[in-house]
Amino acid sequence: MKENRYDDEDFFLAYSRMLRSEQGLEGAGEWSELKRLLPDFHGKHVLDLGCGYGWHCRYAAENGAESVLGIDISERMLEKAERMTEKGVIEYRCSPMEDAEFPPSSFDVVISSLALHYVGDYRKMVLKISSWLRKGGCFVFSVEHPVFTSQGPQDWFYDEDGRIMHFPVDNYYYEGKRDAVFLGHHVVKYHRTLTTYLSALLENGFSITGVVEPQPPQSMLSIPGMKDEMRRPMMLLVSAIRG
Amino acid sequence: MKENRYDDEDFFLAYSRMLRSEQGLEGAGEWSELKRLLPDFHGKHVLDLGCGYGWHCRYAAENGAESVLGIDISERMLEKAERMTEKGVIEYRCSPMEDAEFPPSSFDVVISSLALHYVGDYRKMVLKISSWLRKGGCFVFSVEHPVFTSQGPQDWFYDEDGRIMHFPVDNYYYEGKRDAVFLGHHVVKYHRTLTTYLSALLENGFSITGVVEPQPPQSMLSIPGMKDEMRRPMMLLVSAIRG
Repeated sequence: MKENRYDDEDFFLAYSRMLRSEQGLEGAGEWSELKRLLPDFHGKHVLDLGCGYGWHCRYAAENGAESVLGIDISERMLEKAERMTEKGVIEYRCSPMEDAEFPPSSFDVVISSLALHYVGDYRKMVLKISSWLRKGGCFVFSVEHPVFTSQGPQDWFYDEDGRIMHFPVDNYYYEGKRDAVFLGHHVVKYHRTLTTYLSALLENGFSITGVVEPQPPQSMLSIPGMKDEMRRPMMLLVSAIRG
Repeated sequence: MKENRYDDEDFFLAYSRMLRSEQGLEGAGEWSELKRLLPDFHGKHVLDLGCGYGWHCRYAAENGAESVLGIDISERMLEKAERMTEKGVIEYRCSPMEDAEFPPSSFDVVISSLALHYVGDYRKMVLKISSWLRKGGCFVFSVEHPVFTSQGPQDWFYDEDGRIMHFPVDNYYYEGKRDAVFLGHHVVKYHRTLTTYLSALLENGFSITGVVEPQPPQSMLSIPGMKDEMRRPMMLLVSAIRG
């Protein structure tokens, strides 16, 4: 059973109220850093794994991509994506990314934003992505940071007055399922180490071209709670070239 | 003032009683993983930055290195290293690694074991190392993991009965000096993010070939406290090739 909380009505409603859902890329704290890792999209065939509302698909299309295929497990997500997308080079397809199949060298660029931590078998996914990319093709993804996923609940540790003391790391080397609380709902996510995230790329013929733990941008530091995001890494961005 | 607690008598005595000091490489939990990142030493000119007792220098020499230069800030460390080393291809030199100067392309291999977190300006150090290495040369290092260095004290968080609850992460994006407690002494170490450790390599023409957060080996899990090391990453090992 692949994780799909986004077709749960309450969860989807909560998600739709997040800044990144209302404002798109500009509402996502990591966007300015992620954008810098993205390749030139002109004339490229692009695959977006876990495309959600399709923000990154539209960005690729607006920046010259020849074709963009967005895949997502959630029908609700894709309905919203379709409504926000003009007819053109973008196609959406409802499928768990784990079940996708393509001929070798089908794509120039594979992107995935905050979706791979829902995938149980990351190494198998990377092997597939490597085969789908042409030589010299580019894989850029963001995931929740291993520091953020290791313990499970993904919450700060507070003192008795309810003030944040620090962020807890635990069970770091025990990879696998975590029962996380996200938007007030229980969601299954998968914790894996940084070693696993990067070594699976190196072992599958990728060269690593960028590793970034994005800090909250200056412009967002006045948003409540955002300054605390300077105290822990929450996301990990990686770019790699298929050799 | 460069950090040199190893010439403090009490501190040096405490260090000399660590398993890694008494048993050498085999007493170091990360050695089996670090060894796998090391290149073939045959005929190579090797530089070891922060060589301490010289264990890695001797390993390089025993495995065919043509010359090995070990640099360390501590005279006590080097005295011990000299006593443990037979005359041959190894030379030791007392100097802070930050002050070292070599002509371009002087070395085939640069190694550094658990020393770079004492260096204030890591980016400047990487720029130097890049120039000292010939094209295709190899840089392999271990440092304390950013998770381990971020908060400062480097201790677990305990419940009121003195049991470990988790490991605290804090101030992650605020790089710089930390007042750590190591072997019962206060030691200045420098925290930097994983982003900094890796991006400085990429920006200075290195290809990353390995990133490993070593787990305690099975054979050491019976050592008191070692099983808890499965709960947090304590070290980061990186190998890279100069392009």
